[in-house]
Amino acid sequence: MNRKELVAQIRSKKSCLCVGLDSELQRLPDFFERKPASALEFNKAIIDATRDHCVAYKINTAFYERMGAAGWEVMEKTAAYIPDTHFKIADAKRGDIGNTSLQYAKAFFENLPFDAMTISPYMGRDSVEHFLEFRDKWAIVLALTSNPGSNDFEQQKIGDESLWQRVLRTISAMGSSENIMFVIGATKPEAFKEVRKIVPGHFLLVPGVGTQGGNLSEVILNGKNDDAGLLINVSRAIIFADNGKDFAKAAADKAAYYHNEMKPYL
Amino acid sequence: MNRKELVAQIRSKKSCLCVGLDSELQRLPDFFERKPASALEFNKAIIDATRDHCVAYKINTAFYERMGAAGWEVMEKTAAYIPDTHFKIADAKRGDIGNTSLQYAKAFFENLPFDAMTISPYMGRDSVEHFLEFRDKWAIVLALTSNPGSNDFEQQKIGDESLWQRVLRTISAMGSSENIMFVIGATKPEAFKEVRKIVPGHFLLVPGVGTQGGNLSEVILNGKNDDAGLLINVSRAIIFADNGKDFAKAAADKAAYYHNEMKPYL
Repeated sequence: MNRKELVAQIRSKKSCLCVGLDSELQRLPDFFERKPASALEFNKAIIDATRDHCVAYKINTAFYERMGAAGWEVMEKTAAYIPDTHFKIADAKRGDIGNTSLQYAKAFFENLPFDAMTISPYMGRDSVEHFLEFRDKWAIVLALTSNPGSNDFEQQKIGDESLWQRVLRTISAMGSSENIMFVIGATKPEAFKEVRKIVPGHFLLVPGVGTQGGNLSEVILNGKNDDAGLLINVSRAIIFADNGKDFAKAAADKAAYYHNEMKPYL
Repeated sequence: MNRKELVAQIRSKKSCLCVGLDSELQRLPDFFERKPASALEFNKAIIDATRDHCVAYKINTAFYERMGAAGWEVMEKTAAYIPDTHFKIADAKRGDIGNTSLQYAKAFFENLPFDAMTISPYMGRDSVEHFLEFRDKWAIVLALTSNPGSNDFEQQKIGDESLWQRVLRTISAMGSSENIMFVIGATKPEAFKEVRKIVPGHFLLVPGVGTQGGNLSEVILNGKNDDAGLLINVSRAIIFADNGKDFAKAAADKAAYYHNEMKPYL
């Protein structure tokens, strides 16, 4: 999906919500059997229930790898089930170089129908370059994340800027706001003003709203640009909103809640 | 596998060689059909041919994910085929936090029989902590890698040290030389002296010898400690030594070459 199509979806729905399918088998509603096929069934119900409220889905690969080869198949089938109207993110946080990173790109952009993949920038530019060779595909590069450990390295100063600011500057210069996004955590809403000084036009994928407690309106006010420029992810707070037979209805209600919170700003 | 067992293997073989199973389907010897089962057949032949010369095998997950669910199965079966005498590394470079990183740890340490996993430290301490909760399992954390892009962030100064030195100090304090190793690329052999000032006792996983041209004897002289403290990885230069029917014999010869180069030092 290219930027124009993504922005059109956001404008028509007045939503920049991304639903994170962190479908851990042990956390599915109680009546599901604890087997990989249940995760697929759960995901389909969640997608059906939430698709009118969101513009993107994010699949966290860890929860699927945890189930082995069968889990990989659930990921394939889930990705195929997501409607083409929705932006598909593989939250894989891969970070390797050369031919290895090209294999990751092919795995997620060619074999699987993902539009975008999250990438760890630790190893530098060569860990991002191959992901930019695919038409209408995106690298979503970690910059400032929402966890306490972001202080260990991301927020440390290199010269007069933080590592995460250096990442924004270095990596944004490799491509454009048509093929690169950045991860900026919602738990530091004041940082969005700094982010926008360096990458005014780029989309940002924002985790940390919901269970992690980031403030949605502050994030939008500080972070949005003329094309919205935000994909705000909520995972557990939506998909595990209820533990019983009505889990899909509860997920829809929770997605509608976030959707309604966003509408006035978009 | 714990440190004592690993060191015993290194001492008895006089080898610290790790063979990297970067078994890209397109690069297998010509007579192999281009299907996932061929990668398993190839891996088994390479393992049989090289096991007397090495103490570890490293599976690069990218090449298996590239083949989808069938590739994941090849990875499972390859890992199961590696003898218990050998240290098994998943070169996955995962880097996430909280419950997500716990899922990765369970995927590779519980479902799969790996002894160690490579981890990207970008997000900080919380991207490593869960990997340290498993008995006799290891986190192998990226520090100074062998690629040109290592200059973008890893080699940048934070205060009076480089980011990679900060990573060594911060992460080594989380555990011990019994459950943490670091990745240090062979293309910067002079750096090993600096590495040893910070982590004298830790094992280092060293890529970059072989195709990437790192100097083996310099790495060993600058990097070894009383327990050897090095796992030197060679991938393509060994496994793709020959493209014909004799590929396994050629791989054995190449592994023997590296083995013989190491013996005088170990």
